[in-house]
Amino acid sequence: MQPKFSYLTDLQGSRGGERYSSDVPRNLASDGSPLFARYDLDGVRSAVSPKEISQRPPTLWRYHELLPVQDPAFVRGFGEGMTPLLDLPRLGKAIGVPKLKVKDEAPLPTGSFKARGAAVGVARAAELGITKLAMPTNGNAGSAWAAYCAQYGIEATIIMPLDAPAITRSECALAGADVMLIDGLISDAGRVVGQLTASGAVFDASTLKEPYRVEGKKTMGMEIVEQLGWHVPDVIVYPTGGGVGLIGIYKALLELQELGWIGSTLPRLVSVQADGCDPIVRAFNAGEVEVAGQDDTHTVAFGINVPKPLGGRAVLEAVRATEGTAISVSDRDILRFIGRCAADEGMMFCPEGAATLVAVEALRDSGWIGEGEEVVVLNTGAGNKYPDAVKVELPTIARDAVLDTV
Amino acid sequence: MQPKFSYLTDLQGSRGGERYSSDVPRNLASDGSPLFARYDLDGVRSAVSPKEISQRPPTLWRYHELLPVQDPAFVRGFGEGMTPLLDLPRLGKAIGVPKLKVKDEAPLPTGSFKARGAAVGVARAAELGITKLAMPTNGNAGSAWAAYCAQYGIEATIIMPLDAPAITRSECALAGADVMLIDGLISDAGRVVGQLTASGAVFDASTLKEPYRVEGKKTMGMEIVEQLGWHVPDVIVYPTGGGVGLIGIYKALLELQELGWIGSTLPRLVSVQADGCDPIVRAFNAGEVEVAGQDDTHTVAFGINVPKPLGGRAVLEAVRATEGTAISVSDRDILRFIGRCAADEGMMFCPEGAATLVAVEALRDSGWIGEGEEVVVLNTGAGNKYPDAVKVELPTIARDAVLDTV
Repeated sequence: MQPKFSYLTDLQGSRGGERYSSDVPRNLASDGSPLFARYDLDGVRSAVSPKEISQRPPTLWRYHELLPVQDPAFVRGFGEGMTPLLDLPRLGKAIGVPKLKVKDEAPLPTGSFKARGAAVGVARAAELGITKLAMPTNGNAGSAWAAYCAQYGIEATIIMPLDAPAITRSECALAGADVMLIDGLISDAGRVVGQLTASGAVFDASTLKEPYRVEGKKTMGMEIVEQLGWHVPDVIVYPTGGGVGLIGIYKALLELQELGWIGSTLPRLVSVQADGCDPIVRAFNAGEVEVAGQDDTHTVAFGINVPKPLGGRAVLEAVRATEGTAISVSDRDILRFIGRCAADEGMMFCPEGAATLVAVEALRDSGWIGEGEEVVVLNTGAGNKYPDAVKVELPTIARDAVLDTV
Repeated sequence: MQPKFSYLTDLQGSRGGERYSSDVPRNLASDGSPLFARYDLDGVRSAVSPKEISQRPPTLWRYHELLPVQDPAFVRGFGEGMTPLLDLPRLGKAIGVPKLKVKDEAPLPTGSFKARGAAVGVARAAELGITKLAMPTNGNAGSAWAAYCAQYGIEATIIMPLDAPAITRSECALAGADVMLIDGLISDAGRVVGQLTASGAVFDASTLKEPYRVEGKKTMGMEIVEQLGWHVPDVIVYPTGGGVGLIGIYKALLELQELGWIGSTLPRLVSVQADGCDPIVRAFNAGEVEVAGQDDTHTVAFGINVPKPLGGRAVLEAVRATEGTAISVSDRDILRFIGRCAADEGMMFCPEGAATLVAVEALRDSGWIGEGEEVVVLNTGAGNKYPDAVKVELPTIARDAVLDTV
């Protein structure tokens, strides 16, 4: 049989399990839960092997059989994916986790992991004939979706909080998106997007209200496994706002397991939140299945200031099913670890990425992480997109200065 | 014979041609000209083929036979290199160059091509036992060298103009460098570095005052050739400040030619400068061999505000030997093309990168570039490191806004 480019079969409601055709644009299942893409995994297993995948060009499209785009002509993008998996030997040793590694998402287009979701989400939207979409964002998702929408000729309306990183405004506007700043949080932006898209003339591309963004993000999990030689680490630590990254990694692991490309043991998944916005951690600690919204949230890690994540239920499932955990960290520690990682390793993490390092230190101190365990943290974006996160004071010298030398 | 990791043989003065041992740290040749690394290219040809290189991991270290680091234990870094070579179909068509491509250096560590020079320069410095270095920078080179110095445990002193992009200050300081801001230009910073390093206790890592940074940058040229299937484009267009990138690309092309991996025709190399700082363009137009310094220079493309480039002579040689040219562009056009490229292609170029697009349009208009020619421009860094380059005005809406919908 002729191998197919994608083995997508249909969509499935994440709560009730009912199936929907994937041939037309869709948002949520009829019960209001997110839809997940399903694949003919037997077909994938017959069509391709891990070894063949490893010889393909270094972009996330190397996993095309497990992605929803049907026609390779809709694969464009900017060379996204196969970001480095790097050792953090000095920092790891200092916090008692010598096998600490980072999956560094800074090199992606527009400087964050959001490019993965946008690359796949926008390509699939174009393939399904969508010409207008709208979305709320804390900044980086907007930057990424605006860039890909410009490439595919899709009109994008993007609503972001006034407090979102300033550079993300320019990125969205220059890419031709219709951008509005809202004097509120991403949840307020989401409400306005709901209103804008209610008539159906504009597609609602909000997190988990469209089914394909998570497919792009699952490639983080696939790359980690491939880069470790088709082997899983002991622990994966993820900064959680909307939660799609963690949900995507979990989905990847389950698909790889069903394919027989990894064994029966999964890594323990850790959801990290800021203590100023930790609805998932609260629900986890309370033993809840659903995540309740939180009021007056705030954190320097702006990307994870999501007071009511639609994917909260799926995050809790992933964490519990893998015997993982959820933990909140303080802004003070986040800022401290940005500096510590830069000084020890030469890498300037974004605040969200630094939150994972704080969590690893705490979980090692409590014994939850063992000394010999292999731990992968996600640095979800480029620290240099946050010029105001950490202040430095530097000496100034005159143009004709003469310095004392050694 | 056992293949070697590097086929470096020695260093050669770029003016007089005399040879120096590469086993100890060195700055300039005795006549004050830059030193270039030389290799046993016959040895390289016997040891490895382009096809073998193409199967190596996607970092610049895949060219290790042609890089100066002798011991693979000194290869660390952050997964740098093999940046995407992307088509710019819509912009290319609009300016009459349908085969327009960009080598996008934004994904590199610290967000610019400077990481290539730092990756190789710092690794080689560590291998040669250097423990302290100093350098002047317009910002991005400092960010890159500070990051790699942190990784290798080398103490760095970095002097940058007050006007350098603000984020680069934080990147240098957080990585533990000793940073000073000077109320002047990079040439003033260079003078102070010269004074700091005069005693020999601190190594002077200024552009072309150490011989290995250019070796890292030459990998841009190697990647372009490899990504085109070991074939050269018609034209390569480079934004020129210190000029090391263009010199490196030319050096790569000559080495690949001597290896027999490319044919006898080289791409025409174009040096692009801003009209507020264009000493190389002036020297080119005047038929000079040396580049005279310029006063009171200014441009929004801060990375190429280099009033007296030490490598000017080598840039002129490269441009003339390849039947290339040199051209200056206005700040106004640079800013215009940042917006145009973002809207057409979804890519936010840095100002220096956008300068190359302005040049391509002008050279196509004048007929110097033909319609069917394959033209590669270099986007030397991430546009999102320059939040103030382009201003956008955006509407603000209230938290409880109700919008008119379609």
